[in-house]
Parts: sequence; C-alpha cells; structure tokens
Amino acid sequence: MRPHLHHAHAEHVELESAFTVDASRVTFGPGSLREVGLRVARHLPDGGRVALFTDARLRRTEWYDDTMAALREQNLEVVVFDEVLVEPTDASMQAAVGFAREAKPDAFVSLGGGSVIDTAKLADLLSTHPGELIDYVNAPLGAATPVPGPLKPHVACPTTSGTGSEVTGIAIFDLVSAHAKTGVSSPLLRPTEAVVDPRTTASLPADVVASSGLDVLCHAVESLTARAYVGRPVASPVTARPASQGANPWSDLGARQAIELIGRYLRRAVADEHDEEARHQMMWAATLAGIAFGNAGVHVPHAMAYAVAGVLHDIGSDYRPAGYVGTESLVPHGFAVAVTAPAAFRALAPTTPFRHLEAARLLGGDTAGVGPREAGDVLAEAVGSLMHDVGAPNGIGGVGYTLDDVPALVAGAAPQRRLLDNAPSPVHEDELHAIFSDALRAW
Amino acid sequence: MRPHLHHAHAEHVELESAFTVDASRVTFGPGSLREVGLRVARHLPDGGRVALFTDARLRRTEWYDDTMAALREQNLEVVVFDEVLVEPTDASMQAAVGFAREAKPDAFVSLGGGSVIDTAKLADLLSTHPGELIDYVNAPLGAATPVPGPLKPHVACPTTSGTGSEVTGIAIFDLVSAHAKTGVSSPLLRPTEAVVDPRTTASLPADVVASSGLDVLCHAVESLTARAYVGRPVASPVTARPASQGANPWSDLGARQAIELIGRYLRRAVADEHDEEARHQMMWAATLAGIAFGNAGVHVPHAMAYAVAGVLHDIGSDYRPAGYVGTESLVPHGFAVAVTAPAAFRALAPTTPFRHLEAARLLGGDTAGVGPREAGDVLAEAVGSLMHDVGAPNGIGGVGYTLDDVPALVAGAAPQRRLLDNAPSPVHEDELHAIFSDALRAW
Ligand SMILES: NC(=O)c1ccc[n+]([C@@H]2O[C@H](COP(=O)([O-])OP(=O)(O)OC[C@H]3O[C@@H](n4cnc5c(N)ncnc54)[C@H](O)[C@@H]3O)[C@@H](O)[C@H]2O)c1
Ligand SMILES: NC(=O)c1ccc[n+]([C@@H]2O[C@H](COP(=O)([O-])OP(=O)(O)OC[C@H]3O[C@@H](n4cnc5c(N)ncnc54)[C@H](O)[C@@H]3O)[C@@H](O)[C@H]2O)c1
Ligand SMILES: [Zn+2]
Ligand SMILES: [Zn+2]
Repeated sequence: MRPHLHHAHAEHVELESAFTVDASRVTFGPGSLREVGLRVARHLPDGGRVALFTDARLRRTEWYDDTMAALREQNLEVVVFDEVLVEPTDASMQAAVGFAREAKPDAFVSLGGGSVIDTAKLADLLSTHPGELIDYVNAPLGAATPVPGPLKPHVACPTTSGTGSEVTGIAIFDLVSAHAKTGVSSPLLRPTEAVVDPRTTASLPADVVASSGLDVLCHAVESLTARAYVGRPVASPVTARPASQGANPWSDLGARQAIELIGRYLRRAVADEHDEEARHQMMWAATLAGIAFGNAGVHVPHAMAYAVAGVLHDIGSDYRPAGYVGTESLVPHGFAVAVTAPAAFRALAPTTPFRHLEAARLLGGDTAGVGPREAGDVLAEAVGSLMHDVGAPNGIGGVGYTLDDVPALVAGAAPQRRLLDNAPSPVHEDELHAIFSDALRAW
Repeated sequence: MRPHLHHAHAEHVELESAFTVDASRVTFGPGSLREVGLRVARHLPDGGRVALFTDARLRRTEWYDDTMAALREQNLEVVVFDEVLVEPTDASMQAAVGFAREAKPDAFVSLGGGSVIDTAKLADLLSTHPGELIDYVNAPLGAATPVPGPLKPHVACPTTSGTGSEVTGIAIFDLVSAHAKTGVSSPLLRPTEAVVDPRTTASLPADVVASSGLDVLCHAVESLTARAYVGRPVASPVTARPASQGANPWSDLGARQAIELIGRYLRRAVADEHDEEARHQMMWAATLAGIAFGNAGVHVPHAMAYAVAGVLHDIGSDYRPAGYVGTESLVPHGFAVAVTAPAAFRALAPTTPFRHLEAARLLGGDTAGVGPREAGDVLAEAVGSLMHDVGAPNGIGGVGYTLDDVPALVAGAAPQRRLLDNAPSPVHEDELHAIFSDALRAW
C-alpha cells in the first residue's frame, strides 16, 4: 500500500514510497589518469577521434601530459579544446559546442574541475543531438526539452576536490542575459566513467581547495537534510523519479561519510599543499558527495548560490579570490553556496533537527548535551567556523552585498523551484528574504 | 608513483594503487514490483518477449501476480520459467538454458532469491552467446572463458534478504559431478537493473530469513576484512581489475552499514514475520552488502561454504531446514557460509585486528576495553551468538560433519584460489584444516 495524503479538496495525492539510484563506474587512485587511454579505447572498439576538454591552466600541468600520453598510447586521434571558461557562461558553452560540432569526436575526455566537466557534457549533448542550448536548459529560463537519447562516451577526470560533476547528470553555467546561473539536468548527461586521480590535487591553489571543499560540504549536508524521498508526490510515470528525489538511505551513506571526511581533512588540505593524505581524502569526499547529491538533490544554499554568483556584476563588486585567475569579479561556486549555508541551515533545522544535529556532529561540532532546538545554531556555528578557518568570505557581506541587495538576490533565487522544493520545509520569497538577510555574515 | 614490492629474486611486482567500482541502477521500496513492466519496456522500445524466471513457491505468491500484471500492462509477451531449483545444479541450469534458447526472449525478469536470479543470469548468458555452461565456469573446474559481450536486458527482483545477486556479476551452482559448488563471474552478468520490493519479505519462512541474513553478514564482514586493494599485484591490462579486488573505501561504506543493520534487525526479522521494519531493513542490508562484496569480493567462509554444501551428500547427512521445501538434504548457502565464519574470523583476525574489532562493534558485540589480540574472539563470539539466536546450525557439526570429514572438506575448499587469495593473510591446506577443525562448533 502506498501512503496517501488527504487534501482538503478531497483530492488524493499519491506519495512516493520508493527511490531509484544510479552510479557511474568510478576508478579512484593515484596514477589512474594513466588508465584513461585504455578506458576510452574500450568504448571505441574501432578506434576514432577523442575530444580532450580542459582549461588553459590545466593544459600546462603534468596531469594533462599524463592524459595525453595515455590517449596517444592507444593510437587514438586527439583534438584538444582548452578554452573552457572557469565558471562557464552561455557564450563559453557555445564556443565549446561549436568546436565539438566541427570536430565531430567519437568520445569525450574531460580533465579539469566542474567548469571543464560541465562544458564537455554540453558539448557532447549538442554535438550528438540537434537543438540549441536554451532548448535543454531547466525551466523557467529554458524549455527543459528532455535529452533525446544517449550521448557519446565521456570519461570525466576531475582535478578539483570539488563538484562531483564526474558522477552527476548536471551541467551548470551563467546565463549572462538573465543575470542568473542555470543548467541542464538529465541522467543521460552523466559521464560514462569517472577516473579520479587524487594526485591532481597537488597543484590546486589553496582557495580552490577551500571553495570546492565547501561545495562538497554543502552537497553532503543538503543531501542529508533534503526532504525525505517518501514526502514527494509520485512522478508520472512512476519510473520518472527526478535526481532531486530527496534524502534516501543510499544518498545518506555517501553524505555522512563525506561530511566526516571534510571535518577531518578540509582545514589541513587548505593549509598545507604537501598534506597528501588530506588532499586525497578530500578528493574521495568530493566523489562521495557527488554520488549522494546526484541521487538526492541539493536545495536552499544551492538555489541561493545561483543568485549570489549571478547578481555580482550588477553591484559592481570586485570580489575574486587569488587562485581564480582572470580579470572579472567572480564568486566561485563553492563560496557562493557556502555564504548562505549557515543561515539556511539555521532556518531549516526546526523541521528535521536530528539530521542537522547529526551533520554538526559528523563535521566535528560540539554537540554534547545539545538538544534539537539548538540543532540549527550548532550546525551553523560548525559550518561558519570551518569557513572562517579556510578563508571563505564572511557571508554575502563578504563578497560585497548589503541589505539593500537582498530583494535582487531574492528575485534571483525564487525561480529555482526545482531546488527549493527539495528543502525540508517550504521556502518561498519570505523565507528567502529572511535567510539572505541573516546571511550578511556567516560567523 | 605506484608502490613497488622488492622480491628476493630481484623481480619487481607492481602493486595496485587504485580501485574500480560499479553499481547497477537500484530501485528500492514497497510497491516497486509494480514498476517492473515500465522498467523492462524502456529497454525494449519496439516491444518484445520477456522471460519471467521464478520458482514454484514464488509462483503462488502475490509478488508473482504483481509482477505479471505489471508486465502485461505494458503489452509485453511473457513466457514463464518456474522450474528454478533452490540451490541450482548444473542440470537445473541446463534446463533453464534450454528453455531460454527455445523461447528466444528479448529480455529477462527474475523474481526470487539468489537461486532464481543466478539461474536467469546463466540462461541470459547462454541464450545470448554461444558455448556451453562449463566453458564459462571459473577455473579450475571450468574453462573461465570471458563472457564475449553484453547480455540481454535483465531486471532482477530479489525476494530474499539475501544474496545481493541483483547487483553482482556472479552466478553460483552445484556442479554435481565434481561434488562442488562453483560459478560464473563477469561484470557482464550483472543485471541491468534491480527492483527491490521489501514487501516480498512478508512471506519468507523464518529459516530462509535466518540463512539468507547470515549470508548478508558474511558478505559484509568478508568485504570489510578482505585483503586491501592496494595489496594486490596490478592486473594486466591495469583496467582488468577483478570484482574480487579487495577491501576499498567504497565497499567499506556498504559493508559497515549492512553489519550495523544486521546487528539491529536480524534477530527481530527472524523472530516475527510481522515485524515489517526489521524485515524491510534486512532487505536494504542485503542490497548494500551485495554492492560491497560485488566490488571487493568475499574470501574464506565463502570458499569453505562451497565444500560444506558440496560434500554433504557423500556423508549421508539428512540436514535440511524446514523452510526449504524438497526431499534431498541441503545446507542452504547462508548457513553453509556461516558455519565456518566464527572459526575463520578467529584465525584471520591477527592480520587485520582493527577491522575485525570494528565488525564486532558494528554487530553489537561488547568491545569495550577489548584489545586487538582479542579481536578474533570477540567477533567470533558476536557472530556465534547471532547464529544461535536465529537457529543456525552449530558449526559444521550441526549439519552432520565430524572431524573425520575434514580432509574431504579441505579438498573441496582448497581449489577456490580466487576467493582464498582475497583473504587478509595466506590460506592454504594447513590453514583450511585448522579452520574446519575449529568450526565443528560455532558457539
Ligand atoms: N555538474 C555538477 O554536478 C556541478 C556541481 C557543483 C558545481 N558545478 C559547477 O562547477 C563549476 C566549479 O567547478 P570547480 O569548483 O571544480 O572549479 P573550476 O573547474 O571552476 O576550477 C577552478 C580553478 O582551479 C583551476 N584548477 C582546477 N584543477 C586544478 C588543478 N588540479 N591544479 C591547478 N589548478 C586547477 C582551474 O583552472 C580554475 O582556475 C561551477 O561552474 C559550478 O557551478 C557543477
Ligand atoms: N549471485 C550471487 O552474488 C550470490 C551470492 C550469494 C549466494 N548466491 C546463491 O544464491 C542461492 C541462495 O539464494 P537465497 O538465499 O536468496 O535463497 P533461494 O533463492 O535459494 O530461496 C530459498 C527458499 O526461499 C523461498 N523463497 C524465496 N523468496 C521467498 C518469498 N519472498 N516468500 C516465500 N518464499 C520465498 C524459495 O522458494 C526457496 O524455497 C544459492 O545458490 C547461493 O549459492 C548467489
Ligand atoms: Zn555545488
Ligand atoms: Zn554468499
């Protein structure tokens, strides 16, 4: 028997009683980049052309050399696109799509952070299937056309301890004309395989470790605190469960382990580039959190981050952390998410206090004798203290926003219903206003 | 840099530094059997014929009716094979293969315990690809021919809280002429999707819950205590990592959670068929342990179980638990594994004492103040006490073996090198002899 919810209007809404999870093949370990050639070749029994996507900075690293050597060893023809923009825009995505449509590769390899992997996903999509980028973009900004079928093989090799994009079906970019980040989401975008070589973290600038590590933290905590999967109305057809299906026993496992690893290793990984153990463990945490949120969905801090990153240009802020090369102001995704996280958790904890308490405890917060009423405060405090220690901006004020900007931020976040509906309790404009206002400082 | 081991004979053996994990799509939840039709239909865009595999007892349950209705609703032609033998033999596998070769289905659905799912896997293999069963069987009994390519879609629906076969690439049967259990192992045997409906556990006899629950326990503890993946020589090519690649951070996650759930719920699930929470949680533990051992491998208790089950007829034992209908004597797989588990863990703990202690603690054993030297004893004691409480046979003596039978049992287990090599320390005939002798009683 499925549980039923009786509505005032005598209408039955059938509620979900199951969850569906997927995971890509993942290879994890130092040196695994050397396997990329063999792994791609297995998907191309008759050989062919491989498009290697990366960015200008990664192209100059030994990780690029390893990957290229591994592909060449298999006698694969390689074409390189190294013009990925850090925090991609619709224009930079279009450039990548144009490249792929011209090069007509048989498979894709991405070597880089979320910016590179997401760009390769959309280049794969739009060089395999017809249509334009905006057709596939999530509503309301795009037409949310379903991806028509499988893409070409894509082996994703993350180099940040980071987005988890190597195991998710999500690709994100800044739709500049709309002053908002948005994306495409489909299980068919998930890379065929992930090859995670934690050696790559050795060359990461400290603030990229910090920002992408806080992204991992929010993926994990938001997955753990998302509305439980049993609370959602069933999809139609029932098998069309979205990736944002809510917290479930599978995503809980990866989320919990990731939070624990972050509590233990993120400060060390940021502080000392030679702390191999800490940096490698953060890489594993990133993959686990990707598996978790790819099967549960994130919610409020991520919805708000789209606005935090998107509205920045309008206020004339010159915020840009040192590790992110470039000339324009930019709040990197991880910081954009984290700046509102303490305030969001404080506001949302009353609905699911024990999960918030658990997150605080796993992160290393002092929860001894703490009751459920203080769950939000103790988690906000643990997250804020970690942000402080790794050099994150202190709330939205830390990147240049003031109370006057809150209405614009609310307007930017409110349309993200897919994410907001995954929160443990209803979040509309009033709640967003309150959370943004509370998020001016994070500690 | 990969770690190197320097041999006396000046030969370098490159050691593994990475692991590769895979997981099928899993749908879990009460009522999910009703999705089977839609899920199969998605793999058959042009319609077609589906072979539904089950056994005689399951055919009379409402789970069968649900599954059949779901398939019919999609206008799929369904042919039924309900002659799966509980604990399959080469002869029963051949019958299933003959059926599939004749019926030429486009997809397979299996509804049952490990016996049914394993039978469907081999029917799929041998009706899709040429060759005979023995060609694909693991060495030394078979030729271990690699599976040539993908099989037909297979949606596996487990009805025991049990083998985890729905997420593994393994199929096991009794090769009667050799007096030994053996099997086929390939990632290509893994079902395309798993649909796990925990409602099915409501009709499970108590001793099937007990036996299959102890199987889950051994999958999880053996995965957790298997030789670490970094200890193995690299495969050639490096991408050909076996499913028995050893304990790794991914398998550890599922294994730990499964052990904890078993400690909390197995006694309740056996004692009270109406304890829905306990039975549903055991079903989830079974899937998790399947994901764990499918990516790490089991070792000594499973290697020994092949002998415990295979040699039974030779000693004229009439052991057969009440819930397993039939006339011949039989040690069901879970009991066959569990009877040697306490002795095996006691013998192996000195190499990896902390993992054995952790398993004992997760299972609910009293580990306060226990040091690493007592790890084996405390885990053996926790497992033995659980076995006692759920009505398992008391060691190999409990199914009819005496000290005189130990040489025959050793001879049956010793050829299982693939499994024995996955143990935390070397296990050859001497060690097997000692463990079998210590396993005459389990508590
Ligand atoms: N698809 C998803 O599931 C998902 C999830 C979260 C975020 N994202 C998106 O991913 C993007 C952020 O990705 P990110 O945080 O991984 O960072 P990134 O890809 O933007 O890279 C950040 C900076 O680090 C550099 N860098 C990356 N790896 C390096 C290495 N090993 N050594 C030296 N420098 C290195 C890059 O060149 C860049 O300058 C955003 O656009 C965000 O919206 C996607
Ligand atoms: N492939 C793998 O990864 C793997 C792993 C472990 C074991 N195995 C194999 O699986 C087999 C054992 O499978 P099992 O333990 O799941 O049991 P099983 O399939 O042998 O079934 C045991 C008994 O329970 C009955 N039964 C099953 N589900 C029922 C339900 N819901 N209601 C009522 N009766 C039900 C069956 O009819 C049978 O009589 C052995 O052959 C073993 O070697 C395979
Ligand atoms: Zn993110
Ligand atoms: Zn087993």
